[in-house]
Amino acid sequence: MAVYTQLGPEQVSTFLAQYDAGELIALKGIAEGVENSNYFVETTKSRFILTLYESRVDPADLPFFYALLKHLHEAGCKVPRFIPDRNGEWLQNLAGRPACLIEFLQGVSVTQPTPAQAKATGVALGQMHSALADFDQKRPNSLGLLSWRPLAEQCTARGLEDINEGLAKRVEAECDFLEERWPKNLPQRAIHADLFPDNVLMLGDRVTGLIDFYFACTDALGYDLAVTHSAWCFTNDGTRFQSDLSANLLRGYDSVHGFDAPTRDALPLFFRGACLRFLLTRCYDWINTPANALVTRKDPLAFLRRLDFYSDDANISELMGQLGNGIEAG
Amino acid sequence: MAVYTQLGPEQVSTFLAQYDAGELIALKGIAEGVENSNYFVETTKSRFILTLYESRVDPADLPFFYALLKHLHEAGCKVPRFIPDRNGEWLQNLAGRPACLIEFLQGVSVTQPTPAQAKATGVALGQMHSALADFDQKRPNSLGLLSWRPLAEQCTARGLEDINEGLAKRVEAECDFLEERWPKNLPQRAIHADLFPDNVLMLGDRVTGLIDFYFACTDALGYDLAVTHSAWCFTNDGTRFQSDLSANLLRGYDSVHGFDAPTRDALPLFFRGACLRFLLTRCYDWINTPANALVTRKDPLAFLRRLDFYSDDANISELMGQLGNGIEAG
Repeated sequence: MAVYTQLGPEQVSTFLAQYDAGELIALKGIAEGVENSNYFVETTKSRFILTLYESRVDPADLPFFYALLKHLHEAGCKVPRFIPDRNGEWLQNLAGRPACLIEFLQGVSVTQPTPAQAKATGVALGQMHSALADFDQKRPNSLGLLSWRPLAEQCTARGLEDINEGLAKRVEAECDFLEERWPKNLPQRAIHADLFPDNVLMLGDRVTGLIDFYFACTDALGYDLAVTHSAWCFTNDGTRFQSDLSANLLRGYDSVHGFDAPTRDALPLFFRGACLRFLLTRCYDWINTPANALVTRKDPLAFLRRLDFYSDDANISELMGQLGNGIEAG
Repeated sequence: MAVYTQLGPEQVSTFLAQYDAGELIALKGIAEGVENSNYFVETTKSRFILTLYESRVDPADLPFFYALLKHLHEAGCKVPRFIPDRNGEWLQNLAGRPACLIEFLQGVSVTQPTPAQAKATGVALGQMHSALADFDQKRPNSLGLLSWRPLAEQCTARGLEDINEGLAKRVEAECDFLEERWPKNLPQRAIHADLFPDNVLMLGDRVTGLIDFYFACTDALGYDLAVTHSAWCFTNDGTRFQSDLSANLLRGYDSVHGFDAPTRDALPLFFRGACLRFLLTRCYDWINTPANALVTRKDPLAFLRRLDFYSDDANISELMGQLGNGIEAG
């Protein structure tokens, strides 16, 4: 959420000269996305996002992200494209960092979603899942089930206890619970894996772009839905479940993609897994980020509260009721 | 250089509804300017900068800045206007902070100015000075001559010595030197007082906007020229004077505004004063800003090196030669 690498317009003009992109007329560093440096670039022809990849994104993963967005774009999904230069190259080096010129999409990231916006997001997620049925590139989920116990160990029991009393034991028990029951045989596909409201651009109730695919990986579709559900259907601090958003998100997803029976059965586990993933990465960042650093630390307990919600059978019954009798998964 | 206050699009849409400004279609936090929060706002009608004033700008000064930019705009200078709402109000409250909607100007801030760009900046500065001859609002320069000794005391001798050996004595001697000789009877006028390349938007060799007037105040015109000269005519770190930029900046200024004899005579003092001002504010920030804070600390010594340059008689002779025989001040 900051600009780590400062670029001057002279550098950016030289960079743009490789593209058929017009002349630079505005350049603003923007505070957005994961830990990359992003610039809003306006030229005489169009507008773009210029991204410099800092340490958090492995350059070896960029071809996967490129292929994924190309595939989704060609399937009609609203995602930003990587722009190729005159030689067809979409990956450059700028200021010593891997750099890409990316399509600028209109739209804003809502912070207080309405039911209609949650439904549109469910539809967009379902369309994305359908479109990826024939996408065959793979990227392991480095923040999946098997990463959670080691992540907890890196946080250390003391670190977790400092965040919340009893948290170390709670996390260990949750790892035991999920590792024992996690479905092993569900089909896997490319998923977004981080579809928070931040990463959905909207105009009114319409989705104009799904963005920030830098956690995209190969995993179960139901897990992606669970991440999206946990991100959209609670107040930010996790204290209040928003049932109307949930019903709409699930209905929207169901209307275009649907759930097969094994995915439906596994959803309660996926919900808990999604919460544990964000709880642990937030704990890790909390412990390892100075309070006054560039990056805003996000409250880990917001996902402990969600985990509590999804661990309650009565709540799961309500949610399963909201799934309705949708179409089968495509 | 960061976004301190997070705004959601819902808040911004409500804010925009007060204006005849169209519907929100893009919102990006941008890393720019002094310590305010700035957003790039695009609507169905136009584009704007939305600024929230954080602690560094005193809201009581905003009417001065508003009047100054209005005056300059009406005089044909390229500056961003504060946009009034449907009731003519240009100052609002948003997220608990004073907030203004400001015209978005095209152009980029060069980091390696060319002689032609330095000349255009000299011209723009001269035009601004001419345009302000009949602007009569006043704002004291809180970072002028009389502030420097107290600022050095706030840094403490120990703090200054930690930055560079001998700095405390050097600063004290410079305060003595300047306080004794500083011209008291030169006419004063509103000046920008911070016209670094960051604060000049350009397209090619053309100035499209002078921005960031939040240090603007009433002081001598020659001091404003000296600030601009010290900011534009050296490599960033202050180690190398760029004579061609200097000649062009001075020639550009001289071509539209010129220097009267007392201003010309006082320029050597103004150059040293400008350096001392940025040396001391950078020392203060260096001492009071954690190394890993949101704000990038700027190297104080870059202005000590400039001060050394301007304290050398041979260099001053060269500069005075560059002033030529321009027109008299308007």
